[in-house]
Amino acid sequence: MLSLGVDLGGTKIACGIINETGQLIQKKSIETLSGRGHEAVFKDIAELCQNLIKENGYTIQDFSSIGIGLPGVVNPEKKELIFAANLNFRDLNIESEIKKHIDLPIFIENDANCAAFGEYFAGASKNFENSVTITLGTGVGCGIIINKKIYSGGFFGAGEIGHHVIIVGGEQCNCGRKGCFETYASATALIRETKEAAKKCKESLIWHICGGDIEKITAKTCFDAKDMGDETASKVIDNYLFYLTEGLLNITHILQPEIIVLGGGIAAQGEKILTPIRKMMTKHIYSGILETKIVSAELGNDAGIVGAAMLYAQQ
Amino acid sequence: MLSLGVDLGGTKIACGIINETGQLIQKKSIETLSGRGHEAVFKDIAELCQNLIKENGYTIQDFSSIGIGLPGVVNPEKKELIFAANLNFRDLNIESEIKKHIDLPIFIENDANCAAFGEYFAGASKNFENSVTITLGTGVGCGIIINKKIYSGGFFGAGEIGHHVIIVGGEQCNCGRKGCFETYASATALIRETKEAAKKCKESLIWHICGGDIEKITAKTCFDAKDMGDETASKVIDNYLFYLTEGLLNITHILQPEIIVLGGGIAAQGEKILTPIRKMMTKHIYSGILETKIVSAELGNDAGIVGAAMLYAQQ
Repeated sequence: MLSLGVDLGGTKIACGIINETGQLIQKKSIETLSGRGHEAVFKDIAELCQNLIKENGYTIQDFSSIGIGLPGVVNPEKKELIFAANLNFRDLNIESEIKKHIDLPIFIENDANCAAFGEYFAGASKNFENSVTITLGTGVGCGIIINKKIYSGGFFGAGEIGHHVIIVGGEQCNCGRKGCFETYASATALIRETKEAAKKCKESLIWHICGGDIEKITAKTCFDAKDMGDETASKVIDNYLFYLTEGLLNITHILQPEIIVLGGGIAAQGEKILTPIRKMMTKHIYSGILETKIVSAELGNDAGIVGAAMLYAQQ
Repeated sequence: MLSLGVDLGGTKIACGIINETGQLIQKKSIETLSGRGHEAVFKDIAELCQNLIKENGYTIQDFSSIGIGLPGVVNPEKKELIFAANLNFRDLNIESEIKKHIDLPIFIENDANCAAFGEYFAGASKNFENSVTITLGTGVGCGIIINKKIYSGGFFGAGEIGHHVIIVGGEQCNCGRKGCFETYASATALIRETKEAAKKCKESLIWHICGGDIEKITAKTCFDAKDMGDETASKVIDNYLFYLTEGLLNITHILQPEIIVLGGGIAAQGEKILTPIRKMMTKHIYSGILETKIVSAELGNDAGIVGAAMLYAQQ
C-alpha cells in the first residue's frame, strides 16, 4: 500500500506519496501561512493530501496512513503537538485536526526525527540499527535512531545536539548559552565566518563571488572560493570543519552510532568535507579506531516527507 | 532463583549473590593480580563464585547464571572481551574461560554498563525507561540505558562521555584530546584544582584538613573545608560544579533521559551538589524546563555486581 508523508515547515507544507519501500512517487507543496491559525493550516494539509491523491489517479483506499513531521516538540503516542515556536502552535491534537477532513490513520513526529527516519528507511543510513542524522542549516538539527526506531528521549526532546556546548563560555547562542555546537557548525556560523574573513581580506575571491555585496554570501560561497584557490576561504573552511568535527567526535564518543548522516546544503559538498572530517576523527577518536561511518544524506529535502510517510512501519 | 554477579576491576574482583529482585545477599572479594595472566584470573573468579555458594549454604542448582562486568570493550553477544587496557587482556572468550571451571550460563558486559543496569534494576533509576549513570572517579565513567536495556552503541563503545569535549583546546586529557569532560568533572580534576587553590592560599582550611601534606588531599577534602566555611574551598567547588553541570546539560540536550544518576565518592555529597546542579541546569536547559531528574546513585560500589548478576533479565 501507499502512504502519505507531510512535512510542515515554517514557510512551506510539502506532501508526498510514498510506496512501501520508501520511494517518493509524487509530491506537491503549498505555503504554510501559519498566521492564519492552526485550523486553516490543518485543513490545507488535508486538502493538499486529497488533491495529491486525486491528481495522480489514486483513491483513499490505496493509502494506509498519513504521517506528519512537525517543527517542534511532539508526543507521537498521544498524537499531540506540544509546542512549535516557528508556527506559534501549542497543545494541538493533530489526529483530531486531520480527521475532521480525511479518514486515515495518523502518525506524527518531530521533523528532524522524520528526516532521520527517512534516511534510515530509504537513504544513507538504510539497514543501520543505530544512526544519527545531523542537518547543518540555520541551526543544527538532529534525529537519533536507536535499535531501528526513533529515539526521542524521556520527554520527546532528545537530539538537541546543536545546543550541546563545545566551548564553555564561547560564542553567544540564541538559546542563551554560550559555545553551543550550532554557533560553530551551522550554515549560519559558516556564513558569519566567511563575512568576517572577507572583511579582513579585500583581495579574497569571496568578494568576487558575492559580487562585492557581503549580504549575498551563502554557505556555498566559501567552498566556491576555496575551489578557485582562495587562501582566505581555505582557512575559513578548515576552521569550520575543525569545530564541526569536534562536535561529531562528541556525538561519536557518547552514542557511537554505526553511522552519522550529514544533511543540509553544506553536506552536498560531499567528499570535500567528509574526507577531512574522517581524517580528523580517526586521529582523535578515543579507541584509536573510527568505526562510525560519516556520510552525506541521500534524500535531501525529501527525507522529512519519506520519514513521515513511513512512520507507520515503526509501530 | 539466585544469580551471581562479578565485578572484575584492575585491583579487586568482587562477587555477590543476588536474588531475583536485585538485592545483594552476600558478597566477597579478592585481589585481581592481573599480571598472572587471564587464565589464573578467570580460574580465581570461578573459585570465588564456588566458595561464595558453598560458604552460604547454597548449591549451584540455586543459581540461574553468572554475570560478569569487565573493565573494557565487551561484545556481550559473542561473550568476548575485546580489550581491557588496565588488565592488558585482549580477545578473550569469557564464556569458555569460566565454563572450564563452573557450569552456569554466562553473561558479560562492560563494567560501567553493569553499574548503570544495577542502578536501573534495583537502585536510583529503577522503573525509568531511559537513564544515564555517570561515575565521577579517577575518570568519568558512564552507562546508558535506553528502552530498559543497556545501550552500548554500534560497536560496544558508547558512553565515553568522559571524553566528550566541553572546551575545545582546553585542559590536556590522557586520551590525547584537549578539554575532555573528565579533565574538569572527575574526582581527579577536583583534587587537582583543590591542590592548586591551596598552593595559592596558605590560610585555606584545606591545609588544616590535609595536615599540611598536599598529597593527602582527596576529593572530599574540599567539601569538608567548604563545610567549615572556607572561601577558597567554596570557590573550587562552585567552579567544579559549574563544569560538571555543563557536561550534564550536554548529555541532557543530546539524550534527554528521564533520569541522570551520579555515582562515585563525590556523588555521596548528595544535595550539597545536586541542588546547585539542578538550579544551573534549569537556568540553561534549552526548553526552559528541566524534566530530567538528577540524583545520586543508591547502590554505591555494589551497583556493578548487581547489574552483572541481573544481565540475564535483560535477554
